[in-house]
Amino acid sequence: MPHLGPLRCRTWAALLGQLLRPPRTVCNRAVGCHSQGTRDLSPQQMVVREKILDKIISCFKRHGAKGLDTPAFELKEMLTEKYEDNFGLMYDLEDQGGELLSLRYDLTVPFARYLAMNKLKRMKRYQVGKVWRRESPAIVQGRYREFCQCDFDIAGEFDPMIPDAECLRIMCEILSGLQLGDFLIKVNDRRVVDGMFAVCGVPESKFRTICSSMDKLDKMSWEDVRLEMVAGKGLAPEVADRIGDYVQCHGGISLVEELFKDPRLSQSQLALQGLGDLKLLFEYLRLFGIADKISLDLSLARGLDYYTGVIYEAVLLESPAQAGKETLNVGSVAAGGRYDRLVAQFDPKGHSVPCVGLSIGVERIFYLVEQKMKISCEKVRTTETQVFVATPQKNFLQERLKIIAQLWDAGIKAEMLYKNNPKLLTQLHYCEKEDIPLMVIIGEQEQNEGVVKLRSVASREEVTVNRESLVAEIQKRLSES
Amino acid sequence: MPHLGPLRCRTWAALLGQLLRPPRTVCNRAVGCHSQGTRDLSPQQMVVREKILDKIISCFKRHGAKGLDTPAFELKEMLTEKYEDNFGLMYDLEDQGGELLSLRYDLTVPFARYLAMNKLKRMKRYQVGKVWRRESPAIVQGRYREFCQCDFDIAGEFDPMIPDAECLRIMCEILSGLQLGDFLIKVNDRRVVDGMFAVCGVPESKFRTICSSMDKLDKMSWEDVRLEMVAGKGLAPEVADRIGDYVQCHGGISLVEELFKDPRLSQSQLALQGLGDLKLLFEYLRLFGIADKISLDLSLARGLDYYTGVIYEAVLLESPAQAGKETLNVGSVAAGGRYDRLVAQFDPKGHSVPCVGLSIGVERIFYLVEQKMKISCEKVRTTETQVFVATPQKNFLQERLKIIAQLWDAGIKAEMLYKNNPKLLTQLHYCEKEDIPLMVIIGEQEQNEGVVKLRSVASREEVTVNRESLVAEIQKRLSES
Repeated sequence: MPHLGPLRCRTWAALLGQLLRPPRTVCNRAVGCHSQGTRDLSPQQMVVREKILDKIISCFKRHGAKGLDTPAFELKEMLTEKYEDNFGLMYDLEDQGGELLSLRYDLTVPFARYLAMNKLKRMKRYQVGKVWRRESPAIVQGRYREFCQCDFDIAGEFDPMIPDAECLRIMCEILSGLQLGDFLIKVNDRRVVDGMFAVCGVPESKFRTICSSMDKLDKMSWEDVRLEMVAGKGLAPEVADRIGDYVQCHGGISLVEELFKDPRLSQSQLALQGLGDLKLLFEYLRLFGIADKISLDLSLARGLDYYTGVIYEAVLLESPAQAGKETLNVGSVAAGGRYDRLVAQFDPKGHSVPCVGLSIGVERIFYLVEQKMKISCEKVRTTETQVFVATPQKNFLQERLKIIAQLWDAGIKAEMLYKNNPKLLTQLHYCEKEDIPLMVIIGEQEQNEGVVKLRSVASREEVTVNRESLVAEIQKRLSES
Repeated sequence: MPHLGPLRCRTWAALLGQLLRPPRTVCNRAVGCHSQGTRDLSPQQMVVREKILDKIISCFKRHGAKGLDTPAFELKEMLTEKYEDNFGLMYDLEDQGGELLSLRYDLTVPFARYLAMNKLKRMKRYQVGKVWRRESPAIVQGRYREFCQCDFDIAGEFDPMIPDAECLRIMCEILSGLQLGDFLIKVNDRRVVDGMFAVCGVPESKFRTICSSMDKLDKMSWEDVRLEMVAGKGLAPEVADRIGDYVQCHGGISLVEELFKDPRLSQSQLALQGLGDLKLLFEYLRLFGIADKISLDLSLARGLDYYTGVIYEAVLLESPAQAGKETLNVGSVAAGGRYDRLVAQFDPKGHSVPCVGLSIGVERIFYLVEQKMKISCEKVRTTETQVFVATPQKNFLQERLKIIAQLWDAGIKAEMLYKNNPKLLTQLHYCEKEDIPLMVIIGEQEQNEGVVKLRSVASREEVTVNRESLVAEIQKRLSES
């Protein structure tokens, strides 16, 4: 994949709004259609998605993660109180006999449930799977209600910030590897957020709901978020304004040092703890060679209720050529953080297992790569067929069936038309359309001589091959190409 | 994987009942647990499952199939009337705003909906995904409520029985490839079933419900099925007895020939059509080299309502050594058939696209392979980590972080302990436990000399390597192993 030039990047950014909107399906009762906010993935899309998932999973494995799978739905009570304001976005199943179930909202809560249920004290796992959120497509553009998440998490009691730094390193490896253009990872710490709220004068009972308002800063302006805090959630205007001053702050390790000395913020022990860890984190990020990709951003809040420490979110940027102007946030493509108290909620004795992890928003990445391929007219093969078995004459079905069985027996990927007497032209067209490299052709003359013709579809060259040496000849050709 | 001997096969058969039963989870409200009939897949299980899925998907690709993905839930109205008596087994979602949704029950109906929605007249596709059925674990042993299906289907108007024969060929390739012991594929034809019902005197209105009773013959005795037909569904006893004569019949191409001459069955034009196609099918199966694996079985009905022609079901058998006794059916592991009128139900103009396909019951296969591995004590690596970065001394975190980043940069799969000062023994144990082949060790002396030690965990041999040539040396070692 070529690296994106500035112009292309800008085109993308403009396209994104339209691209990420789910198509409106008007469903006629007699016509097949699917539920609002969901979609099918066509063979072309599947090829693109598999390439992306392969790269992501390879990275997770490079970092020693084990695979895990959990059910699509969980007991509703397992999911309650984990998602704060977003609880209403869950898909509940109908109660059909006492069990109240909901489709999973993310892969983090099921992972925590798995750890507690199996009394596991440490685990480095990845999981790739669908999650479901009933977000209104009208409010949140570019989000499907069913979407795929790729999660990597490290559970266990370790020394501070080492696993956290690895999570950020993984995000960088994946985003660089997918060549989506320049990106930035914003980091913050929940303790810094809470400390900031405390010193600004937010009542403790409002911490979580104000946090979830602040989380909307990537989709709404500060003015709108402020209005929600003040008019919607009853926050005093001067408190909101104090928050407003902090949410402007972003920078690297030097901002951490500055904030240590901030007269207001340094009054919060909690904030100081968070800042201490952020300082250590930046040191590890430097050793990992990724410090330039990470920016402390006090406006970052992360909506999910379970985070307790470092939080982060990766956004794609316009290319450096546009750096003079305001950088355009084309949306979060990966996010995560530390959640040290979630496992304890599922453990009968309340034993805790500290965790940190990340989630790759593969749907947005998927669309970007798909569009990039459309723009560059890159052709995608949707099958892997190596050989097509054809005939120019009538009544050669039996021989075709015998030959193709011989190829399948040898593990060769082979197709033929399901017709008794297909036209040669139709067969040739099929090979060209599907980009099949080789054709085996059997006719009366070949049949009489115990041979077949082996044709290269691209060069149109044909050679005559003995039936017995056909498999070997094909395998030789395929290994050469 | 070794081929199974007779004794082992028998052990399996006995184990199956227990193995396939979902574990009973008693859920305490304070404890994490999952919904009845569902389960997590541990890292060990994920490795086994991925190996099996890889083999199945490879086979589908060998036959030229394209990938497809559809949402987990469909509009409820899309699913109604497709599953006859099984409709109550669907997981419905709560109506939260006008759309009535259900989790998909199989991958066939969504495929038909996809074809109609996109006006596709032909397609060879595979899909691997979860489906959900609210079957009572108490009634149907060995079935989970959430399970994975692997489907391959051929849609399009073709000459008779050519795609159907390929579907059976695929089932044979997969079951042979997975080395699950001997298997048999039962075939029948819905038209033969319906013709048989007609000539036996079943009222047409009862065809589908009697069909679904007959489908239970693999789980219930004929006596119990007969009772359900007569007492439960009001069928005349003599009609049931006539059916009882036919359901005993099974055999190869010669049985097809015999049934053509059967005085009663040959009165049905529908049955004769089905028999004609079965005759052609057996001819193609012979050319494909798999006729000995296929048996016409008049008791085979397939419960799903959408089948219109050939139907089939693969069962694992006890080994040939047990052939004198009654062969024990250890359960259906793959099934499918022809459904020519399903797509039309989703098309606004009622245009039909004939289809034939198969579904691999991967959960049962998965358990068998897992048990086989347990019996043979085969060890499974759950990570792919190639190198572990260790230190025997304190205060070497920074160097370890630098070295591991260098390895990750080179695409090498590497891990380290997330401790500032881990003990060397703990690090060695981790490598042995996780079967990591190589260790990079950095200490004070190495640091001073600009080198590291590279240790083979198995042989315990250590060599000294320059830091600059470390990546190249590791890549050389890995390519040799």
